[in-house]
Amino acid sequence: MPHPLFEKHKATLDAAISAIHGRGYWTPYPEMPSPKVYGETAADDGKRAFEACLGADFVLDQPGQTGWAASERSPYGIDMAVRYPVCDPEALIAAAQGAMAGWRKLGADGRVGVCLEILDRLNKRSFEIAHAVMMTTGQGWMMAFQAGGPHAQDRGLEAVAYAWDEMSRVPAETVWEKPQGKNPPLKMKKHYEIVGRGVGLVVGCGTFPTWNTYPGLFATLATGNPVIIKAHSNAILPAAMTVKIARGVLAEAGQDPNLVSLAVVEQRAATQALATHPAVKSIDFTGSNVFGQWLIDNARQAQVYAELAGVNNVVIESTDSYKAMLRNLAFTLCLYSGQMCTTTQAILVPADGIDTDQGRKSFDEVAADLGAAIDKFLTDPAVATAVLGAIQSEATLDRIAEAGEYGRIVLASKKIDHPDFPKAEVRTPVLLSCDAVDEKSYMEERFGPIAFVVKVADAAAAVGLSERIVSEHGALTVGLYSNKQAVIDAMTDATLRAGVALSINLTGGVFVNQSAAFSDYHGVGMNPAANAAYSDGAFVANRFRVVQRRYHVE
Amino acid sequence: MPHPLFEKHKATLDAAISAIHGRGYWTPYPEMPSPKVYGETAADDGKRAFEACLGADFVLDQPGQTGWAASERSPYGIDMAVRYPVCDPEALIAAAQGAMAGWRKLGADGRVGVCLEILDRLNKRSFEIAHAVMMTTGQGWMMAFQAGGPHAQDRGLEAVAYAWDEMSRVPAETVWEKPQGKNPPLKMKKHYEIVGRGVGLVVGCGTFPTWNTYPGLFATLATGNPVIIKAHSNAILPAAMTVKIARGVLAEAGQDPNLVSLAVVEQRAATQALATHPAVKSIDFTGSNVFGQWLIDNARQAQVYAELAGVNNVVIESTDSYKAMLRNLAFTLCLYSGQMCTTTQAILVPADGIDTDQGRKSFDEVAADLGAAIDKFLTDPAVATAVLGAIQSEATLDRIAEAGEYGRIVLASKKIDHPDFPKAEVRTPVLLSCDAVDEKSYMEERFGPIAFVVKVADAAAAVGLSERIVSEHGALTVGLYSNKQAVIDAMTDATLRAGVALSINLTGGVFVNQSAAFSDYHGVGMNPAANAAYSDGAFVANRFRVVQRRYHVE
Repeated sequence: MPHPLFEKHKATLDAAISAIHGRGYWTPYPEMPSPKVYGETAADDGKRAFEACLGADFVLDQPGQTGWAASERSPYGIDMAVRYPVCDPEALIAAAQGAMAGWRKLGADGRVGVCLEILDRLNKRSFEIAHAVMMTTGQGWMMAFQAGGPHAQDRGLEAVAYAWDEMSRVPAETVWEKPQGKNPPLKMKKHYEIVGRGVGLVVGCGTFPTWNTYPGLFATLATGNPVIIKAHSNAILPAAMTVKIARGVLAEAGQDPNLVSLAVVEQRAATQALATHPAVKSIDFTGSNVFGQWLIDNARQAQVYAELAGVNNVVIESTDSYKAMLRNLAFTLCLYSGQMCTTTQAILVPADGIDTDQGRKSFDEVAADLGAAIDKFLTDPAVATAVLGAIQSEATLDRIAEAGEYGRIVLASKKIDHPDFPKAEVRTPVLLSCDAVDEKSYMEERFGPIAFVVKVADAAAAVGLSERIVSEHGALTVGLYSNKQAVIDAMTDATLRAGVALSINLTGGVFVNQSAAFSDYHGVGMNPAANAAYSDGAFVANRFRVVQRRYHVE
Repeated sequence: MPHPLFEKHKATLDAAISAIHGRGYWTPYPEMPSPKVYGETAADDGKRAFEACLGADFVLDQPGQTGWAASERSPYGIDMAVRYPVCDPEALIAAAQGAMAGWRKLGADGRVGVCLEILDRLNKRSFEIAHAVMMTTGQGWMMAFQAGGPHAQDRGLEAVAYAWDEMSRVPAETVWEKPQGKNPPLKMKKHYEIVGRGVGLVVGCGTFPTWNTYPGLFATLATGNPVIIKAHSNAILPAAMTVKIARGVLAEAGQDPNLVSLAVVEQRAATQALATHPAVKSIDFTGSNVFGQWLIDNARQAQVYAELAGVNNVVIESTDSYKAMLRNLAFTLCLYSGQMCTTTQAILVPADGIDTDQGRKSFDEVAADLGAAIDKFLTDPAVATAVLGAIQSEATLDRIAEAGEYGRIVLASKKIDHPDFPKAEVRTPVLLSCDAVDEKSYMEERFGPIAFVVKVADAAAAVGLSERIVSEHGALTVGLYSNKQAVIDAMTDATLRAGVALSINLTGGVFVNQSAAFSDYHGVGMNPAANAAYSDGAFVANRFRVVQRRYHVE
């Protein structure tokens, strides 16, 4: 008899398994914040629930609490002042370990059922979580709702589907019967138990505190492990809401809520101590190369799944839709002010220009036209602020301010006012141009709305440079514009060697920085930008082991 | 249209997939060296083929050959003098890398088909390989045939089945169609390519040069990677035969034979340079903790799958089949002179003895009776030499000689003559007893025919000690004898926590040191003795990545 929550959500799970095998479009979580889908009062309820958190204690009833901390500063300039419980990491770990045996005994179906119920509850609370995501990260409302809500839930569900896909192929028991010629067969009963490897630590990032956290959270949890979420100090609320919902579902299911807990850690040294704790067996990390590499080098007791910095790039060789190409690229560079780990940073253009449906365009024309396309796209202030959102960190503001040092300015960044949030830090993208030899300019990640049009010798050099950038500095996304099959083939081969996802001739409503759950693998795990993908078999298979026992039966 | 070799072996593959999901008894490779199965002339042909290798050059036509080397010393005392090609590792790596693109393009079905054909050829050459295994490792003939031939092939096939099981769930392409309300849907074609991660290095061991090599070889190869086998300097011939067969099949299939090559490396520094080469992306290692840990610490560019030393142990709490238990344990300790990575080293017995069907037995009686059972089992010299085989290494001979220093001798080791091989180094097991506090005696691996009966306070202490041994020092196998359900439950929980396979009350024809492919997971990958299992999803899933590309379609 499968667990009741497994039965309740079985249709969703079956469809999700089907989706990861077929990889067509699918989602159970509607991305439009529509009252028809989420309920007539959902928008207001969510807003009020978010507002009720501001200036208040966020109670989680976790063990080992030593105090409260409030560290969030909203990019929109509103006063957050949410106080989160600070708990002794040792107490969180001990409680997590104490909860493991019961979680194992619940079985794969029970764990998956509980995870699906958590996701269902998260979906119903999408508005509330979206406000938390928006106000902590600076995302525009629509992105905060979609990427922070349904799309993040998709990624969580995808991880659960992969976990079930792996675990369900291990039988609980078998009878092994080996013929012995004329003698009676050897006959044994064997039991196979799926055992989690230990406490999982999920380290969230400041820009996508749910989308980048849910894959690790749900992959770890479904495979039998407790999870401690160490949220980014500026984006705790979305993680805290998630933890509270998860703990509620766990308790209702008769499980120890300490299977999911929130670690609010203010000192890097304390995070390092947590990450290197012998009980921590997996770490999912999204963030900087410096700390990510530190984890890989030092948290040797754990499997580290890391998404780090990269230099996403696009090669423009030719196009038969020049305007649509520019519009598509302009949107990519504007969306959330380039603060996506998938946003293009380097646009590689041949020195002698490109063939287009509007005639030959010189290198300088391409650069200037792209700048103009960005400018035009941002003409309407309502569109601009909705798409750009606000700048998440001081460091990004600093990079924008000093961007002129990196190259020739094609389009300067402007500070613009937000009609609803007077203190919001809104900036338009800065577009620079430089030569391929100026590697120190464009060949390290300049996180934020800073992009380069890079002059390369010719198309072959562009493809070669793209491959080298990916191999040496990493990338989550690469794009190509070309109407020549030989160039498409060369770029395809380059991306297969370097290990990066390629988008070809995007001129419509899909953008290179978008990655759809169940269909697009986010990251490949083959280049320096990430050592794992969301999600695939490898993302889940190493999070559990099978322990067997056997004995003779008649 | 699947590859012809895939079609040829599809029934075998389907049955293997079914076997890994059901985990009942199954094999396509008969374990009895019967003329009815392998052909009337197979035994003679195999012996002649083996003998033709002795004192001759083993030609492999590999790139970068700089000379010949002959390093093998047979534990049976025969003169091997097989000369193997010594090749520049850089040349082997460059050739392997050059072969990758063609191997990728062959597709998962083509690669799996080629792997299945290689396994089929290996099976047909089982006699020849068995002689090579016997004469290089010291295994007795029947073990050399079974473990070196069909059982090793089973493990290879199992790895291929897991690889196919993972890869076949990635579609080659899809059409992704996202509804846009009243507007036309967004529609994209997406391609997903399975890409190997890079050159795989498989480091063989001196005792099971095929059984411990085939899982890594076939898991790596099937998932799109070239493989370099670095054989143990004393067990090259079985690996060289395997490499030659693989290269032949690859060439026949129109692939570059350099996808599989043999590295004969005489200096440890050269092996280290090979293992840390940037192009090497996976390492499968079986061997000592010292070199295994060196690989894990230093070959950071690669995924390292390591099977290291451990302290396998058995807890005896009670039994209702005293004689059968002693007979079973005696055989385990004698088989290949305890030179299996799964052989029991520590037998934990309560200080006040055990209840048996023959009445209460004191600690000393249990120890003495086990010694007597070993002695009795080895009475017939023909049985003794067939089961014991010969001692593989000087180091093991030294350990046997000094074993008296480790504890009180219950049964001394004897050198016995082999009727067919006058120079063979045949030794009977030494059985020692000691107290649980004498941890320095029994709590490190004493590889070879050296076992300890360890006096523990009581049954609960025995279970606790077993768990601690596994957690701190590792183990591939643990056994229990008890007719009390509470003790069985406690031991089950202990092994689930520590992560080790448990055999309960083995008194018949199955032994704790035996692990059957398709049913028993060899190793768990959760304790210090191994960080991976043969085989499971985790053993293959990380050996490839999926690289996608997408573009709009009408």
